[in-house]
Amino acid sequence: MASFLQQNQERFLTELLDWLRIPSVSADPKFHGDVLRAAEYLKARFLEVGLENVELCPTAGNPIVYGEKIIDPALPTVLVYGHYDVQPADPYELWDSPPFEPVIKDEKIYARGACDDKGQVYMHVKALEMMNQDGGLPCNIKVMIEGEEEIGSNNLGIFVRANKEKLKADVILISDTGMLANDEPSIEVGLRGLSYHEVEVTGPNRDLHSGLYGGAVANPINVLCKMITSLHDENNHITIPEFYNNVAVLTDEERAELNRVPHSDDEFKKSIGLPDTYGEQGYTTVERIGIRPTLDVNGIWGGYTGEGAKTVIASKAYAKISMRLVPNQTSEEITQLFQQHFERIAPSGVTVKVKPHHGGEPVVTPTDSVAYKAAADAMETTFGKRPIPTRGGGSIPIVAMFKSELGLDTVLLGFGLDSDAIHSPNEHYGVFNFLKGIETIPHFYRNYAAAVKG
Amino acid sequence: MASFLQQNQERFLTELLDWLRIPSVSADPKFHGDVLRAAEYLKARFLEVGLENVELCPTAGNPIVYGEKIIDPALPTVLVYGHYDVQPADPYELWDSPPFEPVIKDEKIYARGACDDKGQVYMHVKALEMMNQDGGLPCNIKVMIEGEEEIGSNNLGIFVRANKEKLKADVILISDTGMLANDEPSIEVGLRGLSYHEVEVTGPNRDLHSGLYGGAVANPINVLCKMITSLHDENNHITIPEFYNNVAVLTDEERAELNRVPHSDDEFKKSIGLPDTYGEQGYTTVERIGIRPTLDVNGIWGGYTGEGAKTVIASKAYAKISMRLVPNQTSEEITQLFQQHFERIAPSGVTVKVKPHHGGEPVVTPTDSVAYKAAADAMETTFGKRPIPTRGGGSIPIVAMFKSELGLDTVLLGFGLDSDAIHSPNEHYGVFNFLKGIETIPHFYRNYAAAVKG
Repeated sequence: MASFLQQNQERFLTELLDWLRIPSVSADPKFHGDVLRAAEYLKARFLEVGLENVELCPTAGNPIVYGEKIIDPALPTVLVYGHYDVQPADPYELWDSPPFEPVIKDEKIYARGACDDKGQVYMHVKALEMMNQDGGLPCNIKVMIEGEEEIGSNNLGIFVRANKEKLKADVILISDTGMLANDEPSIEVGLRGLSYHEVEVTGPNRDLHSGLYGGAVANPINVLCKMITSLHDENNHITIPEFYNNVAVLTDEERAELNRVPHSDDEFKKSIGLPDTYGEQGYTTVERIGIRPTLDVNGIWGGYTGEGAKTVIASKAYAKISMRLVPNQTSEEITQLFQQHFERIAPSGVTVKVKPHHGGEPVVTPTDSVAYKAAADAMETTFGKRPIPTRGGGSIPIVAMFKSELGLDTVLLGFGLDSDAIHSPNEHYGVFNFLKGIETIPHFYRNYAAAVKG
Repeated sequence: MASFLQQNQERFLTELLDWLRIPSVSADPKFHGDVLRAAEYLKARFLEVGLENVELCPTAGNPIVYGEKIIDPALPTVLVYGHYDVQPADPYELWDSPPFEPVIKDEKIYARGACDDKGQVYMHVKALEMMNQDGGLPCNIKVMIEGEEEIGSNNLGIFVRANKEKLKADVILISDTGMLANDEPSIEVGLRGLSYHEVEVTGPNRDLHSGLYGGAVANPINVLCKMITSLHDENNHITIPEFYNNVAVLTDEERAELNRVPHSDDEFKKSIGLPDTYGEQGYTTVERIGIRPTLDVNGIWGGYTGEGAKTVIASKAYAKISMRLVPNQTSEEITQLFQQHFERIAPSGVTVKVKPHHGGEPVVTPTDSVAYKAAADAMETTFGKRPIPTRGGGSIPIVAMFKSELGLDTVLLGFGLDSDAIHSPNEHYGVFNFLKGIETIPHFYRNYAAAVKG
């Protein structure tokens, strides 16, 4: 089948680039029309590859693109999930080429969404086309691609709860994660959850002249900095009371197993241009990213930020603060702890508002399941090397939701790399990874169908 | 003469409003043409009121508007200084009316620059017109209005050094400060200096996904917050080594005298909507603003600041940090101490750049001089109450420069109020204050000329 892929790879890339050209940024209302265009584009591709009952399912937000092919109700069914919305692309000036004018350079596709997640979703569409040319599907397939993953998947849960029969399946398949390296295939089996907040600190009732008032009023920016700083202690532990109460503690054996993942701190530092690693004392880099909860400021702003100097004491200062969660923390628990704590530590003289943005639950997926083995075997076939199970730091909140609502486990068959700069300027996706994904996915279906039937 | 003022006050206000309509924002290059138009407008008004040798003196930056009237070389000469440039007006959305569409509401002129300093400069122009109608000038007058005060007066010192003969005078008169209240006239006799910096903290070489990297790299925003927080101790003392070395320590008597200024912490808090005052332990609000150096963040930014949530670890974080200085600190000394300290406290894993913006020296002007008495007498005549000498918190860096370059003391005959919201949205200037300034200034010239001659 490699030859069909080889013969059609130029067309596959062209189609993907056309899709990437549509700026489907869900976080910014001004792109709303583009988000809908991206959904329509995908729907048309679903129809081309023979999916049936294709529709844009309305939600209170962006529509979910759905299609299915039921070849035999007696066969197992795989439900594919992904998302067609993308992260905001700013700061635009740091992109070497415009984020929505995709280019292929050095065998990489550069565009916002190239990897996260349009590129990975499109592998599934083309894998279907390829299977059609090679004996048809080995099992039933349902595909559900949403448009609000980057803003918290607020309407997906509602849709899933309302459509349990329609979405009935045996396993969930998602390509929205990465692997260790192109010659080091791996499958994520643990994902951190998320609790994300915007905080607002208000001091004086208007901006003040720092000469006339400086030194005699609480400056909201200084106060916000102090509050943020107090959220970590000198060992980089998070100081929110009860924050660690439910963190699953791994045994020494489990930690040793985890640290067997190929990882070099030197290469890690080099790849991001830092002289040192950093983080919670007593844990390795792999552990800090995989099994420990963290707290980071994702954005901060206040006062005068233009050219030159303005001697102002701002009335308000803002920050976006998120925490990555691990089993058995829950987003709801941590959101509440953060909110209470942040309001409590506000010094007299300022008022604080905490607005939770969205959350997601941490998950660990089983490595002893039929589906995991089918995926590992598929990768071994196409990469020539057995993949390593890893625990990544990112969050795919809907994995926990699929488990609770549909009772289904998920396989995270992702082909991205840490260096793909997703959520950053110059996001890209390797042409190798895109094609290898299209090649690998059909093996998964065949392995899975054979194992379940057998 | 009050009747001439009464008869012409509508016209005076109309002329000022026309000038305020020109957005002479010096900090932002896109207003450069407007800055020049504001200078031309002023030059035309100088000619109308009979100033001679009127010119736009070129500098490496914005021109200085100059004019003079020498009625008799044997008489004393007053050099008037002011500025026609204004602070940036953003955030625009917080203005009740657009900053460059001046309106008069509740007897106040609302516009950027209404008080600081176009409104106060224009009082001097109209005071000249009034004296022309009332027996002419009692002494020689030179007027020098610059266009770069809000960005540090970088070219004024060069101009002054190159034109010492042209600027020869006996005293400097400036209206760019405030008084305690409309029924509590006062004259500023102490001004704090300024050291202003932009700092940049760089962590990883690109923005990173907080899920994949969070907890394992130094987050530049968190680091910047921690560095800023460390600049004050628990008593709100500034922690920069040697920072207080040269601070003039007042005697108990001097402090008691200073605290006799009418001030109510309750009214102060109420006026800015704060439940508490705040500041360096061991000092009153009046002392914190008047005689103690301070450090404030004037702006901060980094990471994602748009709508919604983006789970990013920013590569860079920025802040604008300024210190207000008191005698006998110097801007050069403190700029160097800050720079060294801020670079030294950067933790391993980030790099720090400190870019000084501009500075200014603290000054105390004498209260026993002929010029101060002439000003105090003038205010007593028009306000019916002897003004109180105060030590304000703002900075007029050029006062120290005039002393060192021209050997001249300055009288700060300002008519603004703390509540005028200069440097803030809804800057305004009382119609009362504008007219009272025009009425008071001629008395100063007459008192001063009489005292020097006598």
